Amino acid sequence: MFYYYTLAFGIIALIFSIVAAVLTLRKDPGSKRMQELSEAIRSGSSAYLNRQAMTIGAFVVILSILFWFLHNGEQIVIAFVTGAVTAYLTAYLGMNVAVRANVRTAKAAEKGVRHAFYTAILGGAVTGFAAIGFGLIGLSLLLSYLSISNVAILIGFGFGASLVSLFARVGGGIYTKSADVGADLVGKTELNMPEDDPRNPAVIADNVGDNVGDCAGMAADVYESYVVTLVAALLIAAGIANAGVSAFLYPMYIAAAGVVGSLASMLFLKTKSNNATPALYKGIGAAIIVSGALDVAITYMVHMPISYFAAVFSGLVLAILLFAITDYYTGSASKPVIKISEAAKGGAGTGVIMGLSVGLRTTFFPVIFVVVAILVSYVAAGVYGIGIAAVGMLSLTATILTIDSFGPITDNAGGIAEMAKLPHKVRKVTDALDALGNTTKATTKGFAIGGAALSAIALFVAFAQAVHLTTIDALNPTVTAGIFLGALLPFVFSSFLMEAVGKTANLMVSEVRRQVRTIKGILTGKAKPDYARAVDIVTVNSLKALVVPEVLAIATPIIVGLVLGKEALGGLLVGMIPTSFVVALFMANGGAAMDNAKKYIETGKFGGKGSDAHKAAVVGDTVGDPLKDTAGPALNSMIKVVSTISILLAPVFLTYVLL
Amino acid sequence: MFYYYTLAFGIIALIFSIVAAVLTLRKDPGSKRMQELSEAIRSGSSAYLNRQAMTIGAFVVILSILFWFLHNGEQIVIAFVTGAVTAYLTAYLGMNVAVRANVRTAKAAEKGVRHAFYTAILGGAVTGFAAIGFGLIGLSLLLSYLSISNVAILIGFGFGASLVSLFARVGGGIYTKSADVGADLVGKTELNMPEDDPRNPAVIADNVGDNVGDCAGMAADVYESYVVTLVAALLIAAGIANAGVSAFLYPMYIAAAGVVGSLASMLFLKTKSNNATPALYKGIGAAIIVSGALDVAITYMVHMPISYFAAVFSGLVLAILLFAITDYYTGSASKPVIKISEAAKGGAGTGVIMGLSVGLRTTFFPVIFVVVAILVSYVAAGVYGIGIAAVGMLSLTATILTIDSFGPITDNAGGIAEMAKLPHKVRKVTDALDALGNTTKATTKGFAIGGAALSAIALFVAFAQAVHLTTIDALNPTVTAGIFLGALLPFVFSSFLMEAVGKTANLMVSEVRRQVRTIKGILTGKAKPDYARAVDIVTVNSLKALVVPEVLAIATPIIVGLVLGKEALGGLLVGMIPTSFVVALFMANGGAAMDNAKKYIETGKFGGKGSDAHKAAVVGDTVGDPLKDTAGPALNSMIKVVSTISILLAPVFLTYVLL
Repeated sequence: MFYYYTLAFGIIALIFSIVAAVLTLRKDPGSKRMQELSEAIRSGSSAYLNRQAMTIGAFVVILSILFWFLHNGEQIVIAFVTGAVTAYLTAYLGMNVAVRANVRTAKAAEKGVRHAFYTAILGGAVTGFAAIGFGLIGLSLLLSYLSISNVAILIGFGFGASLVSLFARVGGGIYTKSADVGADLVGKTELNMPEDDPRNPAVIADNVGDNVGDCAGMAADVYESYVVTLVAALLIAAGIANAGVSAFLYPMYIAAAGVVGSLASMLFLKTKSNNATPALYKGIGAAIIVSGALDVAITYMVHMPISYFAAVFSGLVLAILLFAITDYYTGSASKPVIKISEAAKGGAGTGVIMGLSVGLRTTFFPVIFVVVAILVSYVAAGVYGIGIAAVGMLSLTATILTIDSFGPITDNAGGIAEMAKLPHKVRKVTDALDALGNTTKATTKGFAIGGAALSAIALFVAFAQAVHLTTIDALNPTVTAGIFLGALLPFVFSSFLMEAVGKTANLMVSEVRRQVRTIKGILTGKAKPDYARAVDIVTVNSLKALVVPEVLAIATPIIVGLVLGKEALGGLLVGMIPTSFVVALFMANGGAAMDNAKKYIETGKFGGKGSDAHKAAVVGDTVGDPLKDTAGPALNSMIKVVSTISILLAPVFLTYVLL
Repeated sequence: MFYYYTLAFGIIALIFSIVAAVLTLRKDPGSKRMQELSEAIRSGSSAYLNRQAMTIGAFVVILSILFWFLHNGEQIVIAFVTGAVTAYLTAYLGMNVAVRANVRTAKAAEKGVRHAFYTAILGGAVTGFAAIGFGLIGLSLLLSYLSISNVAILIGFGFGASLVSLFARVGGGIYTKSADVGADLVGKTELNMPEDDPRNPAVIADNVGDNVGDCAGMAADVYESYVVTLVAALLIAAGIANAGVSAFLYPMYIAAAGVVGSLASMLFLKTKSNNATPALYKGIGAAIIVSGALDVAITYMVHMPISYFAAVFSGLVLAILLFAITDYYTGSASKPVIKISEAAKGGAGTGVIMGLSVGLRTTFFPVIFVVVAILVSYVAAGVYGIGIAAVGMLSLTATILTIDSFGPITDNAGGIAEMAKLPHKVRKVTDALDALGNTTKATTKGFAIGGAALSAIALFVAFAQAVHLTTIDALNPTVTAGIFLGALLPFVFSSFLMEAVGKTANLMVSEVRRQVRTIKGILTGKAKPDYARAVDIVTVNSLKALVVPEVLAIATPIIVGLVLGKEALGGLLVGMIPTSFVVALFMANGGAAMDNAKKYIETGKFGGKGSDAHKAAVVGDTVGDPLKDTAGPALNSMIKVVSTISILLAPVFLTYVLL
């Protein structure tokens, strides 16, 4: 087979990632004080990821044993463990560079926005290219050793990645928002401290959260989407009668084209002005044009009908559409954001009502876009078309993930600049990049959610093939029952996450209040707060809160499949995928819009900082926090864990039914 | 045919409703001041309902013309108009008695809780029995004149009721919450006035809202569920090959049995103690036992297999289970409610986060119950079983609606007692009943939502028969596209409602602030506020906000059906029904729990009234208001409008497809 080509592109991506890492680390890490702060953030982040690895490890061991018996062999276990390990490596590597890139970005800001932007993008690229590198290498190697008949083993690789992604999203999400909300509630509201004030005992935990949530969590999530999408396309190919070798090569080659496209995008991700949004569009645009051109060539090369390219292209276009629509709804000073700010004049209640209303409304266009992409790709190339459309979209992973990781790096850079009391000029640069980082975090979430939906649909098709179902009939009441349970799942799942954030944030509030009360001199800046204790509280409680939602996601499909049968399990997927997609959009966009509504007021509108409208908007921001950074994004991983485990256990559901 | 029997039971119900009305009106309406207040509420409510009738009338005329051409005859138009008119009559009649029962309940409270409770229940019974009376009479007459072959005409009747219900729910919902939020935001938060303070210019509008929303809106909604459920069961019967006359009689007879069961429940709806919750359970229990016993007899009488009774019984049991679970999650001082109160100690942000978390969690058991009911009824009697299970549940309509209408009556009674400054002893009684009314409003919403879901599933089956589909395959990408659009609909729809409440409430806030500023002596109680102007603002703006969501609900299925075809339209229903069900539960229960969390603090817990926790809980209550009383309940009507119009236009979708 020809997987050495794609292996080569995987290696190229990985080399670029390493080069980016080296270039980043060579930059000036700034003063001793800055390095101290960066080191505190770094050690907190590593400590969390290490402890999280223990919890995940336990799950991996148990599930490996289960799979060994079920599939009667070690191949699936190797695939599963490799998927899990590479996902964790991506998250770990990306985060470890990000926590070093932050201080270097702050330092570079002294030389102007161009240098700071470049440093942060470079740091982000480490994660972006590591993700596609690991993904391509892993899949190429697996494919080279598998015959088409046991291509099903690949799903083990996908599930490993999904599992880690779910942990990283849930744990990181709870961590980041508990710390953030806790820090804000006492710091901003009670003590009138600005963001990132070093006197706030929760400030380091808050910055750690940015890394373990936005950086490691997002990296694992998008890595997983990337891998799982490719796996889904390959499984669909395997399920099609008379599918030739090209049907397997095609998605892999498109992914390889994405490496080139993403490298091209790096040439455009640069700016001289504080408004760097155009640079982002140029970068993504370049990735799409270059990848698209290569995809046309590939389509000819592997002798696919040219209509197949239409499917791939619909995925590529979907990526930028989702990016742009999220930008419209949640960008700073966008119309919907201003509407929320204005409603906050009436109080926190009306502000949050309007925020929820905007969040609900933002679901419209993304769903329409996805629906059109589904129909176009289906018309172009049947169910296989849906698979390759998803691959087309996800082939942009490196670019999107680079832009995303830029977010926590600049956020942290801003924090360090503030805490280290760097000059006003420098902070102006870091502030501008921090605001942009907020937008990129939101817009890339749009990509991640859309990608998750598209890849879940592809997985759904693969599931039907795996359990030998040619129809999943919604008129069959067993299927109906499954659909209701599927629609229910995202609600119950998010409920646990929201609760965990609420509880942990409250513990944080108590701790901060306690430190302010007992450690004399904190408020005057004479005594140092006990940062480590605050970090410890969020770490322990985030890990505690991990288990229930994780078990829920793994156990639900197993129980439904065993008790109600494979048709009901199909129904579960049918209900879960669209509902989770819409709920995730509502949460992620609603939260981001409320965040920026607060920021809009802070620019001096509707009374500015400290006004009643601002206080009301801060409440909205707090409510939006766990929606946008915990529950919403975790749904991406949830739907993939549920889908992949359903496929993985297909042999069981085929032979055993309780009722 | 034997529809004279069921006609007779319909007449009995209507007579009981009239008797209850006469008995209510005979009660002492209290002092001149009390009558004045009641009159202000009454005239505001009527004014709104009259103006709303104009808007609805326009829609009815346009749609009648459309249906005339489509179905080429006047039968469908007659059915449609009758459905719309009876729905409006139910809402109008019920509300008109309620606005007179309120002052009489306040007066009766002088004589103790027993009298006050009885008066409010009697007033509520007018609505409850009018609903089933109109429903049974209308359907019996229609059935008597139709042959089985054109039983499809019945759907026109159902759609008429659905359309009115949607208007009443949306318009009433926006009205009630805009007024409530507007009144609270200035009154409670800025001016430190208690609830129902006569110095608050929005106070009459607030009380009017209780009637047009909770009373008229709920009456139209439940009436419609009742009618549509019966229609769905009859349509399913018509679609079954070789269905005998019994298959048509059976659901009608079960509904007739419900008249007797509901009359029996009236004997148990009485209390001597301030804690009247047990009386409610006894009342519903009695209705279930009596109806259930009659249903067994009916099953033998019409020669149905006894397993069919199992289907009906699963519907009956579902009713009380949904009632009880909502009570558990949202009842005053329930564990989840206390959790929200406690979280409010950390601030408005954490309070709302926990409120949303609880709301998300409350979806679990209702969905499980409905799923079990679907499976049991299907195993017992096939798809017909799902239809008759829904009929079984909805046969309790009169009892549930009586208990529900009790809510706004006691709420208003409390308001009048407060505004007329009745003695403390009296207010203690009205307060207790008001609190109970809050619970009944929440719990009956659980019934309405569950009933809507079950009847929508029955309608879905009827739809498939109407468009001649024997499978609706989720693996067909056109269907998948429909499912995504269906899952989207409740989100976009609620977005408009939330926005309307936010906007109108803000207008109300400005108006109240203006009056307080310009009318001297308002705050000292020397000058009377301009209540009418406040009423007018909400009226005009609620009616304005009606049109978009209404058009959305009517146009979406038509567009999807015409552009993507009947399979996609089937997908739309598949996506919409479960998602709307879960979203409605989340909204209704989450809002109710946040409301009671505020009330729990007001009993002196966590600092009591005026504490920071209380202020935070008030924000939660404000956010919960449009969720629980506007968006959540309106989804019930939305799913039925979408389902019924899909069936109604089936002939079009059969012959014409764009793509």
